Amino acid sequence: MSIVITAFEKSPDGGMGLARDTRVRWALEEAGRPYDVRLVSFQAMKEPAHLAAHPFGQIPTYEEDGLCLFESGAIVFHIAQRHGGLLPGDSHARARAVTWMFAALSTVEPPILDLSIARFQEGDKPWAAERMPLVAGRIRQRLDMLSRHLGDAEWLDGAFSAGDLMMVSVLLRARPSGILDGFPNLAAYVARGEARPAYQRAFAAQRAINAP
Amino acid sequence: MSIVITAFEKSPDGGMGLARDTRVRWALEEAGRPYDVRLVSFQAMKEPAHLAAHPFGQIPTYEEDGLCLFESGAIVFHIAQRHGGLLPGDSHARARAVTWMFAALSTVEPPILDLSIARFQEGDKPWAAERMPLVAGRIRQRLDMLSRHLGDAEWLDGAFSAGDLMMVSVLLRARPSGILDGFPNLAAYVARGEARPAYQRAFAAQRAINAP
Repeated sequence: MSIVITAFEKSPDGGMGLARDTRVRWALEEAGRPYDVRLVSFQAMKEPAHLAAHPFGQIPTYEEDGLCLFESGAIVFHIAQRHGGLLPGDSHARARAVTWMFAALSTVEPPILDLSIARFQEGDKPWAAERMPLVAGRIRQRLDMLSRHLGDAEWLDGAFSAGDLMMVSVLLRARPSGILDGFPNLAAYVARGEARPAYQRAFAAQRAINAP
Repeated sequence: MSIVITAFEKSPDGGMGLARDTRVRWALEEAGRPYDVRLVSFQAMKEPAHLAAHPFGQIPTYEEDGLCLFESGAIVFHIAQRHGGLLPGDSHARARAVTWMFAALSTVEPPILDLSIARFQEGDKPWAAERMPLVAGRIRQRLDMLSRHLGDAEWLDGAFSAGDLMMVSVLLRARPSGILDGFPNLAAYVARGEARPAYQRAFAAQRAINAP
């Protein structure tokens, strides 16, 4: 059965790989699954046809064999559960890998998203400059704890898993701000993720569409 | 094997059930699984013993048979996967229920958390009053789309699932602001969740500890 995902017709990041289709592409590449991409314009994302697939009018979505999913976390988990290479076989290790997926999305990504909101939705407000250090501080607080946990380990819990795929994807979004560089072990962890051939293929595929 | 979760020694909400142990208690009650609770002070949450279980120094954690998990999403999913009553048997419906869990945590909860940050961490800042409508507007935007999707359905995707458990838990956090009341079908949906006997037991159990 063929897999179809959706992605931005033109990603706002100009091909830096920070849109959420990249993490789904990465998971599909790790799993060795071919896929097709349907590009969606910002206007089409808010129209009934796309809202039927994604109630919040975002990308990515995932279609396969009559199943239609949204939310990058759910899609990556679905891929990981059905194919090898992204979740350990041992049930305890598997539950811990899923924990790291949720930690990436629920604990680490929200303060990083707040930085985007502060920049792009509130960047012209009178409080923008004074508020920025508070927003950055909340990211640093989380990255500091993640950095202490990771220490000099290669991955978060033994072998590379969907938990690492999601955490690296989320941390990449903090890199343009320079905040990631303040945590050398996390920067190296992200670089290990990026060095994986599957990530390289996913990055190149989105870049071919989005690069200026 | 006995299950032990952690919860606040004294929840900041004074027993309103908005701390994240409530959603785990609710899942355990739906699954019919007894559990013990270890209460943790704010100081102890930042100490090495607790950080070994929860790298971000939060609650809840979940221990069972040598397995230690954190992140309410991961814990609820783990419970749902191992016991009946929280995930449908059909594989497509199951994947959609998991999608709603991620949607609750990644798409709906972050703007609601921003309201808490605006109130409790930035409430004394000069921009607090002027910024509040923007923060509330971002919540309304998400709830509006969720409300359109739900329509007059009872639950998000057919039968009650862990996706509803998580969405109701997240929406409850928007109720004190009055924003939820602007969406009568979502308010009724939350009330249906609260009316479940399992939720009632979970709520009462946390209230017994936290009520003033």
